Amino acid sequence: MYKGTAASPGIALGKALVVKNSKIVVNRRNISNIEAEVEILRKAIDTSIDELTRVKEKVSKELGDEEAEIFTEHLMVLEDPELIGSTISKIIDEKVNADYALNEIKEMFIDMFEAMDNQYMRERAADIKDVTNRVLRHILGIKVVDLANIDEEVVLIAHDLTPSDTATMNKEKVVAFLTDVGGRTSHTAIMARSLEIAAVVGLNDITARVKNGDYVVFNGETGEVIINPDEQTKRIYIKLKEEFERYRRNLAQVKGHKSVTKDIRFIELAGNIGTPEDVEGLLKNDAEGVGLYRTEFLYMNRDTLPTEEEQYKAYKAVLEEMDGKPVIVRTLDIGGDKELNYLDLDKEMNPSLGYRAIRICLDRVDLFKTQLRALARASMHGKLRVMFPMISSLDELLNCKKIIKEVMKELDEEGIVYNRKDVEIGMMIEVPSAVMISDILAKHVDFFSIGTNDLIQYTCAVDRMNQKIHHLYDQFHPAVLRMIKIVIDNAHKEGKWVGMCGESAGNLKMIPLLLGMGIDELSMSPISILPARQLIKTLNYDDMKELADKVLCLGTSDEIVEYMDKVLKK
Amino acid sequence: MYKGTAASPGIALGKALVVKNSKIVVNRRNISNIEAEVEILRKAIDTSIDELTRVKEKVSKELGDEEAEIFTEHLMVLEDPELIGSTISKIIDEKVNADYALNEIKEMFIDMFEAMDNQYMRERAADIKDVTNRVLRHILGIKVVDLANIDEEVVLIAHDLTPSDTATMNKEKVVAFLTDVGGRTSHTAIMARSLEIAAVVGLNDITARVKNGDYVVFNGETGEVIINPDEQTKRIYIKLKEEFERYRRNLAQVKGHKSVTKDIRFIELAGNIGTPEDVEGLLKNDAEGVGLYRTEFLYMNRDTLPTEEEQYKAYKAVLEEMDGKPVIVRTLDIGGDKELNYLDLDKEMNPSLGYRAIRICLDRVDLFKTQLRALARASMHGKLRVMFPMISSLDELLNCKKIIKEVMKELDEEGIVYNRKDVEIGMMIEVPSAVMISDILAKHVDFFSIGTNDLIQYTCAVDRMNQKIHHLYDQFHPAVLRMIKIVIDNAHKEGKWVGMCGESAGNLKMIPLLLGMGIDELSMSPISILPARQLIKTLNYDDMKELADKVLCLGTSDEIVEYMDKVLKK
Repeated sequence: MYKGTAASPGIALGKALVVKNSKIVVNRRNISNIEAEVEILRKAIDTSIDELTRVKEKVSKELGDEEAEIFTEHLMVLEDPELIGSTISKIIDEKVNADYALNEIKEMFIDMFEAMDNQYMRERAADIKDVTNRVLRHILGIKVVDLANIDEEVVLIAHDLTPSDTATMNKEKVVAFLTDVGGRTSHTAIMARSLEIAAVVGLNDITARVKNGDYVVFNGETGEVIINPDEQTKRIYIKLKEEFERYRRNLAQVKGHKSVTKDIRFIELAGNIGTPEDVEGLLKNDAEGVGLYRTEFLYMNRDTLPTEEEQYKAYKAVLEEMDGKPVIVRTLDIGGDKELNYLDLDKEMNPSLGYRAIRICLDRVDLFKTQLRALARASMHGKLRVMFPMISSLDELLNCKKIIKEVMKELDEEGIVYNRKDVEIGMMIEVPSAVMISDILAKHVDFFSIGTNDLIQYTCAVDRMNQKIHHLYDQFHPAVLRMIKIVIDNAHKEGKWVGMCGESAGNLKMIPLLLGMGIDELSMSPISILPARQLIKTLNYDDMKELADKVLCLGTSDEIVEYMDKVLKK
Repeated sequence: MYKGTAASPGIALGKALVVKNSKIVVNRRNISNIEAEVEILRKAIDTSIDELTRVKEKVSKELGDEEAEIFTEHLMVLEDPELIGSTISKIIDEKVNADYALNEIKEMFIDMFEAMDNQYMRERAADIKDVTNRVLRHILGIKVVDLANIDEEVVLIAHDLTPSDTATMNKEKVVAFLTDVGGRTSHTAIMARSLEIAAVVGLNDITARVKNGDYVVFNGETGEVIINPDEQTKRIYIKLKEEFERYRRNLAQVKGHKSVTKDIRFIELAGNIGTPEDVEGLLKNDAEGVGLYRTEFLYMNRDTLPTEEEQYKAYKAVLEEMDGKPVIVRTLDIGGDKELNYLDLDKEMNPSLGYRAIRICLDRVDLFKTQLRALARASMHGKLRVMFPMISSLDELLNCKKIIKEVMKELDEEGIVYNRKDVEIGMMIEVPSAVMISDILAKHVDFFSIGTNDLIQYTCAVDRMNQKIHHLYDQFHPAVLRMIKIVIDNAHKEGKWVGMCGESAGNLKMIPLLLGMGIDELSMSPISILPARQLIKTLNYDDMKELADKVLCLGTSDEIVEYMDKVLKK
């Protein structure tokens, strides 16, 4: 048995198709006919552009515009004058073959992007690699395993799947993925979840261990993979698969229902989004609102700040598409692990404890006001809620509210209309100091949204990206749970509601406890919404209250998890 | 009026002596007589060694061995075969003059040390600069302003004061320091506090603004400096100086007294130390114990871990010198901003939220056990208390206690004696999660010591070294104060005592509040002990309890500070 990273839930059984593409081997040759060599490059690029355009259209039709976006990026790479121009210059200046020149320039760009130590740039490096390899294969005449013509049901096994692979493959026949590399947020993982097929990634050398035609079974929820299982194991997996499919069907049945406990306590189940395009997936999963619109994406992948108009359009699009359902927009949460080059922020010793989010906005009020103006204008188009990230003191919150007042006054003077009554103003609770004064803060907001990712990080003093101390990053830490309870109680005392938008909010093990502590709203990734609703419909609020009271007296997360397992399995 | 960094308290009035040493200008020359050039270097080094040996002896006699330590470092630089050998090689290989060769090698070493981004190495860079400049001046025949023969009372004004400057100067006549550069922990500042003379540093260009013979007055507590004041200002400063001297005399009077409020509540006033040599200053300032022995220094400035024997000797020395007074030893608190090269720790994105302190010790149990063995053996020589840094969960605390048990068993088996009854075991409270479960943790320790520096940092999510957000690092933040109160109440409920060893513990503005919240012990820098005792003797515990209750309901630190000022000035 092998164990990898669980990437997409589901039980898979099937024949293995191991995809090993021939390695691209590039050698330097001196050439004499420069024009012919440049022509070889141009032709390979044109063929690649044609292919990518077709792939993009296919994906756009089958999976939606958002999924097709990646190919727009790829096409942009091929139209990038820097990359192509540099390659042609190299061919001319050094009199070398096109594949060698392109490969050298590719490496240079990739090194450059990867050195930028920024998630976005590293992803761009992966794009460049994917697309230039496509061109190189055309130059070298390397045939690619044709995933479009798979004609029997298979478990696809590869070193890694590129966007081009997943886009072109015959989705009717591929029932699951296994890959050597990748994590939960790799393209392969995201694609599998989107296609609702099981996947395990990060298996190191699964392509070496499995042969074409081997029979594999695996569990996408635990990451366990078995090659050529005995008959008994096979029967167990068939049974697991049936159970899982029944569960999936049940999920479909809670669509359109309210999220409500057996003793009739309603919870709002909302979704997290990064762009207006994400709304589609949210609605497909029956979200009751947007619980976290991360506006950072509007500011990323560009050279200047987004204008008021650009922002207005994005906010308006989300509000309109949500059609009266509430939308919580979080104001700019940049800094920390997310950088914006054009803001020219200093390198910091501890960026997570640094100049970020509301700290930047209250320092660069111009930038903040632009966002608030756009939000105010968009408020006419739906049910808007605005919240501020990283608030650590009452002063900061009051400053935010003062700036809102100023923006409203400016808009009034300019005769620009906005919804002045119904926009709820809230703040994230993700800094321990905000927890400790939540009684005071609650008087000045309409709602809180608890951001567990950062709250756990600061409360336990653990960088959640640091693998070395990952065991200390613990959402069931009694201190974290007690903080959540304090926040909910303090808000309720002031008649305010409390949501949660960190990863804990979508965790099925956590939800009974959150419910028992009195949480009013949960915002999660779209795929978690229906499972959460289904769970909530089986729970009793009063029982969960009792559970939470018991749990909050326990001293360690192990005791807590064990106790909950015992009670909830009854 | 100019404003710099307050470096050492006191009011100074006096005639300015501006020390501007001739700049060292080095030019490259080709030389023919290599042997003569090497001889020039050797002679300058010998002269420097003679000088430094004399200075060291003088300082050792006048100020103590600890102060003289710096010159041992300087002498070691001059005996470093790397530095001298490289310089001689350069003279020979490149046929260049000695001063040029030495200057080049000096720059190289300084660049190397400064690039190490480590406080200790940067200080070594400063040492190298100071001592090589001494040699360069001898080679170049540059005369240095002779600080030993100052014959009238002066305020010494310089770009910066080197250890050699402060060591050789006539301390009878120098009544205060002003410098262009430096911070509160610069050599100039430390020296001024040690000599108990007023100093302001970091004044940028004070050497350019003051002429020899100008009259200057300044306040070492506010950093305000006035050049050639009018008569009225002068009178004000004379009055301030009298008040300050009266205050200093009063301080001397509380020596030997208990630290006790008017209504007879005792507080233990202890001091922070880094090495056994620091005990002397502690006893001079009448500390009632060591509240924080930072054992990191034992591990720093070397290539291997300290042996059990080395550690035992250090702990024993401190315990014996404290002669029955309690000594809290904090186990290794490395990582974060303090690095040890030989541990080969990975570079981290957020070191303050990383692999550090107890996290390393529980991972590298061998290293931890060596320290615990040394501590157990030292326990025979005084009143030992041991505490663990960075505890964030009950599991960690119980693991520490388990390892102590193992160490005791090993010592028993080896027949090594230790004090098995009277050693108190405690932990630092510096991670918010520890605050939130302090009720549970209190059951398993003899005491808590609140480390405010880190606690504030994590609670407010502010790197305390990050200048850009320094305004958010706030010891009077209501959340921090509420946390302190929670910890004290939880400990007292279990009959355990609570100390504090962060910078807040020595802050005279904070002490009334800490007293009111019920703190039992405060550990601070030696110089703060007598002022704290004097303050405590003027306070009423019951009044402070009332003050604390009021303060804990306020929402911002401004309100808190304002309220306290009002109440305490009555």
